[in-house]
Amino acid sequence: MRELLERAGGFMGSVDNYQEADIALVGAPMDFTVSFRPGTRMGPRQIRTVSVGLEEYSVYLNRSLDAVRFFDCGDVSLPFGNVQESLDRIFRVARQVVQDGKFPLFLGGEHLVTYPIVKAVKERYADLVVVHFDAHADLRLSYEDQSLSHATVMRKVCDLVEPLNVYQLGIRSGIKEEFDYANENTNMYIDQVKEPLSRIIEEVAGRPVYITLDIDVVDPAYAPGTGTPEPGGCTAREIIEAIHLLGGSTVVGFDLVEVSPVYDPSERTALLAAKLVREAMLSFC
Amino acid sequence: MRELLERAGGFMGSVDNYQEADIALVGAPMDFTVSFRPGTRMGPRQIRTVSVGLEEYSVYLNRSLDAVRFFDCGDVSLPFGNVQESLDRIFRVARQVVQDGKFPLFLGGEHLVTYPIVKAVKERYADLVVVHFDAHADLRLSYEDQSLSHATVMRKVCDLVEPLNVYQLGIRSGIKEEFDYANENTNMYIDQVKEPLSRIIEEVAGRPVYITLDIDVVDPAYAPGTGTPEPGGCTAREIIEAIHLLGGSTVVGFDLVEVSPVYDPSERTALLAAKLVREAMLSFC
Amino acid sequence: MRELLERAGGFMGSVDNYQEADIALVGAPMDFTVSFRPGTRMGPRQIRTVSVGLEEYSVYLNRSLDAVRFFDCGDVSLPFGNVQESLDRIFRVARQVVQDGKFPLFLGGEHLVTYPIVKAVKERYADLVVVHFDAHADLRLSYEDQSLSHATVMRKVCDLVEPLNVYQLGIRSGIKEEFDYANENTNMYIDQVKEPLSRIIEEVAGRPVYITLDIDVVDPAYAPGTGTPEPGGCTAREIIEAIHLLGGSTVVGFDLVEVSPVYDPSERTALLAAKLVREAMLSFC
Amino acid sequence: MRELLERAGGFMGSVDNYQEADIALVGAPMDFTVSFRPGTRMGPRQIRTVSVGLEEYSVYLNRSLDAVRFFDCGDVSLPFGNVQESLDRIFRVARQVVQDGKFPLFLGGEHLVTYPIVKAVKERYADLVVVHFDAHADLRLSYEDQSLSHATVMRKVCDLVEPLNVYQLGIRSGIKEEFDYANENTNMYIDQVKEPLSRIIEEVAGRPVYITLDIDVVDPAYAPGTGTPEPGGCTAREIIEAIHLLGGSTVVGFDLVEVSPVYDPSERTALLAAKLVREAMLSFC
Amino acid sequence: MRELLERAGGFMGSVDNYQEADIALVGAPMDFTVSFRPGTRMGPRQIRTVSVGLEEYSVYLNRSLDAVRFFDCGDVSLPFGNVQESLDRIFRVARQVVQDGKFPLFLGGEHLVTYPIVKAVKERYADLVVVHFDAHADLRLSYEDQSLSHATVMRKVCDLVEPLNVYQLGIRSGIKEEFDYANENTNMYIDQVKEPLSRIIEEVAGRPVYITLDIDVVDPAYAPGTGTPEPGGCTAREIIEAIHLLGGSTVVGFDLVEVSPVYDPSERTALLAAKLVREAMLSFC
Amino acid sequence: MRELLERAGGFMGSVDNYQEADIALVGAPMDFTVSFRPGTRMGPRQIRTVSVGLEEYSVYLNRSLDAVRFFDCGDVSLPFGNVQESLDRIFRVARQVVQDGKFPLFLGGEHLVTYPIVKAVKERYADLVVVHFDAHADLRLSYEDQSLSHATVMRKVCDLVEPLNVYQLGIRSGIKEEFDYANENTNMYIDQVKEPLSRIIEEVAGRPVYITLDIDVVDPAYAPGTGTPEPGGCTAREIIEAIHLLGGSTVVGFDLVEVSPVYDPSERTALLAAKLVREAMLSFC
Repeated sequence: MRELLERAGGFMGSVDNYQEADIALVGAPMDFTVSFRPGTRMGPRQIRTVSVGLEEYSVYLNRSLDAVRFFDCGDVSLPFGNVQESLDRIFRVARQVVQDGKFPLFLGGEHLVTYPIVKAVKERYADLVVVHFDAHADLRLSYEDQSLSHATVMRKVCDLVEPLNVYQLGIRSGIKEEFDYANENTNMYIDQVKEPLSRIIEEVAGRPVYITLDIDVVDPAYAPGTGTPEPGGCTAREIIEAIHLLGGSTVVGFDLVEVSPVYDPSERTALLAAKLVREAMLSFC
Repeated sequence: MRELLERAGGFMGSVDNYQEADIALVGAPMDFTVSFRPGTRMGPRQIRTVSVGLEEYSVYLNRSLDAVRFFDCGDVSLPFGNVQESLDRIFRVARQVVQDGKFPLFLGGEHLVTYPIVKAVKERYADLVVVHFDAHADLRLSYEDQSLSHATVMRKVCDLVEPLNVYQLGIRSGIKEEFDYANENTNMYIDQVKEPLSRIIEEVAGRPVYITLDIDVVDPAYAPGTGTPEPGGCTAREIIEAIHLLGGSTVVGFDLVEVSPVYDPSERTALLAAKLVREAMLSFC
Repeated sequence: MRELLERAGGFMGSVDNYQEADIALVGAPMDFTVSFRPGTRMGPRQIRTVSVGLEEYSVYLNRSLDAVRFFDCGDVSLPFGNVQESLDRIFRVARQVVQDGKFPLFLGGEHLVTYPIVKAVKERYADLVVVHFDAHADLRLSYEDQSLSHATVMRKVCDLVEPLNVYQLGIRSGIKEEFDYANENTNMYIDQVKEPLSRIIEEVAGRPVYITLDIDVVDPAYAPGTGTPEPGGCTAREIIEAIHLLGGSTVVGFDLVEVSPVYDPSERTALLAAKLVREAMLSFC
Repeated sequence: MRELLERAGGFMGSVDNYQEADIALVGAPMDFTVSFRPGTRMGPRQIRTVSVGLEEYSVYLNRSLDAVRFFDCGDVSLPFGNVQESLDRIFRVARQVVQDGKFPLFLGGEHLVTYPIVKAVKERYADLVVVHFDAHADLRLSYEDQSLSHATVMRKVCDLVEPLNVYQLGIRSGIKEEFDYANENTNMYIDQVKEPLSRIIEEVAGRPVYITLDIDVVDPAYAPGTGTPEPGGCTAREIIEAIHLLGGSTVVGFDLVEVSPVYDPSERTALLAAKLVREAMLSFC
Repeated sequence: MRELLERAGGFMGSVDNYQEADIALVGAPMDFTVSFRPGTRMGPRQIRTVSVGLEEYSVYLNRSLDAVRFFDCGDVSLPFGNVQESLDRIFRVARQVVQDGKFPLFLGGEHLVTYPIVKAVKERYADLVVVHFDAHADLRLSYEDQSLSHATVMRKVCDLVEPLNVYQLGIRSGIKEEFDYANENTNMYIDQVKEPLSRIIEEVAGRPVYITLDIDVVDPAYAPGTGTPEPGGCTAREIIEAIHLLGGSTVVGFDLVEVSPVYDPSERTALLAAKLVREAMLSFC
Repeated sequence: MRELLERAGGFMGSVDNYQEADIALVGAPMDFTVSFRPGTRMGPRQIRTVSVGLEEYSVYLNRSLDAVRFFDCGDVSLPFGNVQESLDRIFRVARQVVQDGKFPLFLGGEHLVTYPIVKAVKERYADLVVVHFDAHADLRLSYEDQSLSHATVMRKVCDLVEPLNVYQLGIRSGIKEEFDYANENTNMYIDQVKEPLSRIIEEVAGRPVYITLDIDVVDPAYAPGTGTPEPGGCTAREIIEAIHLLGGSTVVGFDLVEVSPVYDPSERTALLAAKLVREAMLSFC
């Protein structure tokens, strides 16, 4: 009977257990601090579900998911509404993954989940570089009086790694203070996604790179299913090519955040996310 | 030019300022502790918006909103993700409303917002009775380790008022512990909404009554736009009649919670909520 | 090749030409005077489209559409935004249908289209009775200064037929003036749909009856796809039974109005409308 | 790390392996022969997904899913478009489940999947009774020249079991030939769902009963997410009570079919299905 | 209590009263003459609502909305279905705004609303230039026998200003007569949006420019929420840049029309509109 | 009365009968072998319906549909679930059209319908060239054990025409075996749509060309309403220009497949399809 049945739920092509995997895929379905439209908690689930609509083989890279060994660990169990405890749990999972020598690949959830993951990766890679794709600068000191927020996450990351090691691409929204901070501290590329990459890759050659990709870096035409869509972004093709370009660096961790399925009945946002996860695994591992 | 323009945004029929009002309508757009589908933060806004699709006159009661003086105060400004501070702010607003001698009418947001409102109302009415319409018992001690949750709110309310003064109607979901607690402490009517009301009204005659109405007490056919829909509920007509029946009691406060617009493209959940708000104002004030 | 192809577009079971038909089905896709949500112009089209999801046979009546000969004439071509000219054209089509001795069966569009149809039917039946199913009284003298409006249509009808010959069922919304007028002039049944029918049928025995059915008489749970949904209405089963009951009268014309597809992704409003059209044809002809 | 993670995808409360289970829950995501709107292949997946929005405990029955031991086997893997091979595979899985002494509980998919399941159950229970909840008679000999179709499934079932042992409830659509056949062969209750059950239960006392529940027996207001919605059905509460009533019989198998998620953005159809699955497991096992 | 509350409804960053404003933002929610899909009457409301999802600061222009003083006047109150009276009211409001020396910024509603606004602006600026972004030429003499129509608006504008002063960009749909007229009278750029702008800006240097922007100039991928989407348009980024380029001209009025929310559950059409309004205010004032 | 009515349902601008037509437009609403999301059976109907939102005149080509004589034949009647019989019927209709000397223009349905159409066209044009726009290679030998599948269609076409005469553009998804086959047999252009066309047109000059266009060649941003959307495709403008370029070849047949309306509430996928049909008719005939 076994051969007639298929278990549903995981990302296509996962190996059967954690031990044999080189990549650990983990969902972090937290959406407690978002300011506009919540719902990214449904993101990891839908990204997995629609992944079966894609192939495991990438014609861009002439490589298939069976060439990388990844395990879909499921989602971090989170206490609804408790931000601090949620971040702690994500951190503990990320640290374990890193300590086990596996490549951490997280799916949000809101962008704040990047903070504990970078913290865990940083423990292992002292000279970590962070490449940040996003429509929003996310560099506030606080948002509505909260220092832990989806709008402050990159400022928090700048507490973990040297701001000079933070590269921000595609940014087209924020308040003046964020851009002033970026000008003096990080490397920010307004509205540019693919163009600056070759130069950046040269700069960070040989150093460990963590990539955090907020799906809203892409224009809402291509990724309408997100919490704070910001018109004027790049195309799906551009972000796919950006991932391919970064295949030339030493990438040590990756997250893709802010997919919010309910605003996209076509499911194309989750399909783009699933495709980016596939290309990321095939490019970085 | 003035006479040619209309300002948009508020609930139909609001008077122009707080001072002259007998009822204060307040939105509490918090949705941080929900477990299934977030989005009730958009509830108050949509209830106001669709209210213009209704009339100010109720043929059921032969009375119009101009007969009651209510002011739409707008929404409580909330720090996203900070549960405690959010509840504090709601409490401060509710207390002020009560102290000003006005009838508090709150729109959620998630059900947890009822806790600080009841707390404020209880300060004034020592012998407060709470009538609770809901599909869920909401009587847990904690949910996912959190004692402040949409699933614990009525247990928290039972810390404020005598559990024996809590009447729960329409309940059809929960865990065993909640029903055990209810059996011993509160007055719970499984799956019944209108039937027990005449008896309850008799029991509480002369005492101050607070009503909290979770829109999911109604069947999802009538109110699909909610976070945790539970099939098997009452009809729209039944809940309207229940409000009319309670017009015979001394109602001193009212909230309507858990409207989540994004799951209802027909907007009928918000329309039902707006109609219930109108009938509540005309019945209780 | 012919036998392998099917032409799409018309209501299921139409005969091939107007001449041989006993019933003329006509769409009147006008939605210019509505106050809340436009879109009923798409109604006739969707009612036809989904009709293929039903059977031509009615088990309730043990009769099939091939027993009545109806022709789907298509839609009246309307000049967008020109209310008077649109009503004129609808009148001319309706008059021709009546003069040709056929049963007029119109699909709205907004409720105002009933006015010219009744005018045409009245020319033939001097003692016409009008039975009106609706959530709204539609008895205003004017609405936003317009005397021709979906909110005034029944008042206009009362200029055509004796108000005492107008029976209004299911009404649950309006302004005080409308109910005052109804009390003195028409026969109005607040919130009742099926209950008063046997009495009405007795009263109008032997007289010609025109039926106008605004789909919002049904609760938005059953008919969410409409312009001004009003919670608290009857069920689909009740309105089907009401049509069956009226089969005992001498019905000489029928319209079904206010289906607005875009608010109902499930298409069940149009399906209910198509089923009511089938039951009406099988009951009245 | 384990304790911080949860695997997603299965129906809530499943035990960890097939061997220890008393009930085998199997998805049959086939939708190849439907005539109106396809999409039920997504049904099993969504029913599982939304099941987490419910509780494992039923207050109606005062019993929880941990009292029954069921295993979610996943979906039968089906060759797209190949009807015969698909039915064969479903049959092989169902037969294995029955031979292993487990209670078969299948989720459709389209209604035709019931045929191979009943065939498998009949092998074990020679005097099998079939109770059929549906809006449609499904008694055609063929549909569009196909004898294997969602519209012929109950006629095919009548080849397996004595037609006199087939009880059909809630039926309100079909062609004349179907009702003629039913009158002479099966036990059909037009438009009635709960009313005839006590009598039926008496009639079949002591005999093995298989239940097939097409979700469209319920009115589209309560279950819009289905392929051929038929207005005029029962309420969610009625169908829940029907399941409870049948708890008094010896039920030996159950399927729930025709949930089509894409037509129901509110997810309430799948929620009702999940609740019925829970109540069925708690009532029958 | 004041400091805890926020009034909802207006465009983000509005000043508190009309008198102190340099820009008057006015909604004109008319959609009576459209031929395909109505619904733009909901446009102004949704543009305001989603504006809170953006920032008041524009990183493109390094300028924030607090640098311009604008007042959100609300919507012109319109008699449903009465085209002429509606246009009169819009004209009266626009004329008052112009006479008060404020920059008129109108939100449609359908495109016909541009006619009375241009009429009012032309009263002050005799040598007015009109820059028109649109997928459609809108140059018909009449449409379905109506001379006042969303399809004739630019022809009507050509009655107000010299056709040679009308510049039409992005046009890709119309009938032959419109393009013949354009060839002989106006300046039309087929399918081009940004390219011709520098030349145009040079041509009109020093003269007052009115800009009318039909959101369907953008491809439906970026702006699906509109009445007559026409595939093949420009990107969101291009139209944003076009606004920035026009900042080099003397712009004296602006409208953005044809946003129809119901066709865009992602809300990105309204978000693009809100962003264009922000960039327009920051570029032109 | 005639002049006041319009029959609905067909593609805009159709002539009145088959005999006088040069082009036969036929729907093939089959969706039985698709693997991910069914629903393309609704495609032909919606493409026709929304075509009225476009003009008959193309400004790109300065030509109107009245210059070509096409007849909308309706849809091929298909037995649900019977793949072989369905393909046979489509073949018989296509062959008749070709034998009658008319240009075959088919609307899918799923991509497998292309196989019988090419078979019919090949009977007449021995040296047929096939130009294939698609995101997917569709070159599998079998899919889920089925050799007749939407994923094998181009491999089946390679049985009909020389693989070397097959040109595949825009391809960005498939399994390794498909690309290996393509490398050795067909002409495949990964991810390129417009670029290779001039060279191809030169190569095939003077030879009969059949074009099959799977709408998913376009990015899901522009065409979300399809069964297996694949992020990273071309824009609407690019595919329109590709059709224009092919106007320079001797095109003898055309199909457009895989439009699935339910996933696109904005209807822009069907609008793009209708526009491509118009441009194809005006370019090729």
